[in-house]
Amino acid sequence: MDYPLPLVTVDAVLLTLRAGALEIALHQRDRAPFKDAMALPGGVVHADEDDNTEASIRRVLREKTGFEPRYLEQLQVFSGPRRDPRQWSLSVSYVALVPAAELEAAGQGLRFVSVDALPPLAFDHADIVAAAVARLRGKSSYSTLPFFLLPEHFTLTELQHTYEAILQTRLEKSNFRRKMDAWGVLEATSDFVTGAQRPARLYRLKDFALFDRSVG
Amino acid sequence: MDYPLPLVTVDAVLLTLRAGALEIALHQRDRAPFKDAMALPGGVVHADEDDNTEASIRRVLREKTGFEPRYLEQLQVFSGPRRDPRQWSLSVSYVALVPAAELEAAGQGLRFVSVDALPPLAFDHADIVAAAVARLRGKSSYSTLPFFLLPEHFTLTELQHTYEAILQTRLEKSNFRRKMDAWGVLEATSDFVTGAQRPARLYRLKDFALFDRSVG
Repeated sequence: MDYPLPLVTVDAVLLTLRAGALEIALHQRDRAPFKDAMALPGGVVHADEDDNTEASIRRVLREKTGFEPRYLEQLQVFSGPRRDPRQWSLSVSYVALVPAAELEAAGQGLRFVSVDALPPLAFDHADIVAAAVARLRGKSSYSTLPFFLLPEHFTLTELQHTYEAILQTRLEKSNFRRKMDAWGVLEATSDFVTGAQRPARLYRLKDFALFDRSVG
Repeated sequence: MDYPLPLVTVDAVLLTLRAGALEIALHQRDRAPFKDAMALPGGVVHADEDDNTEASIRRVLREKTGFEPRYLEQLQVFSGPRRDPRQWSLSVSYVALVPAAELEAAGQGLRFVSVDALPPLAFDHADIVAAAVARLRGKSSYSTLPFFLLPEHFTLTELQHTYEAILQTRLEKSNFRRKMDAWGVLEATSDFVTGAQRPARLYRLKDFALFDRSVG
């Protein structure tokens, strides 16, 4: 017995931090199904052209938003007969963590909304967003994942606020700095931010591969 | 421009513990491609019949092995133009954790091999097995995942040996028992195992939903 092949798509949750709140970048659909609805940037896998589904989502993001994320991770498959009115479909979803300034500069036609106040989304994209936020929050207490929401150089205060926004909790300043010191992933630069406050040193992440210590 | 649709399959890594070693259950393929090679149990998604890819893998396992796993988790998508000689294909892979006795009793035509001594496998199944083992080892130090490799009732010694086999390390007995006590997930039964040793009490897992404490 032959079965029809599923429609295979890729979708990305572009997570960013703006004014201390976790936001995602959405675009407005210009065609059916769900024409005019807000949706995650995504598209159909081009078999015979894409090397794999990660290549698919990178191509789709380039074409639809002009943006290439530095941190991209496969999230989860969402599938079934009813999520797309056209046919049985499967979406391989991805999470990207993006510094807001980078996304605002490069991303075309994107609208930012807080993950806590989503508009109605096309397909089952609200479920995909919920899974992405849960993944980020789950991993952040023991990983350097939150660093990817910051520019390459950042102050310790900016880093602390990033962890706080993701973990939805206040962290004690001296304790946070002591843990970061002990972790050994930060590298001090010779640059400082100056302004109304006293100068604050800029840091950068020493090793992007470490995912094994608790900062919570 | 139209693109051919990918072939969509599901595959399962059935992990179990036999004689203190982590093993997986394989079957021998009876048709091309990779006829006669050892492979993960898997099959094609039946769109218009399966509710989603998890329903697909449960159906495939039922049909091919007669076995229904209690613990099944989505692992990762493997995809591309070369992994299946027939066409551009995508596999949604799953990990199941299964008590050996259960799998030996119910599973038809399965062969057990150590994860450290795999034969050549069909497709990219060796990569899928490696990802499954890494996921199990990564999650086991802070979760009750290893309990799913045991029968419903087990002794503390069996539990410790299970953690040791997965984490590839020896744990100190009194320290292990103290951490398990503090964790509060174990429930003592009124039954004992008797034999050459002095009687050992049987325990069971109180709450299958807890995934948040370190036992390492």
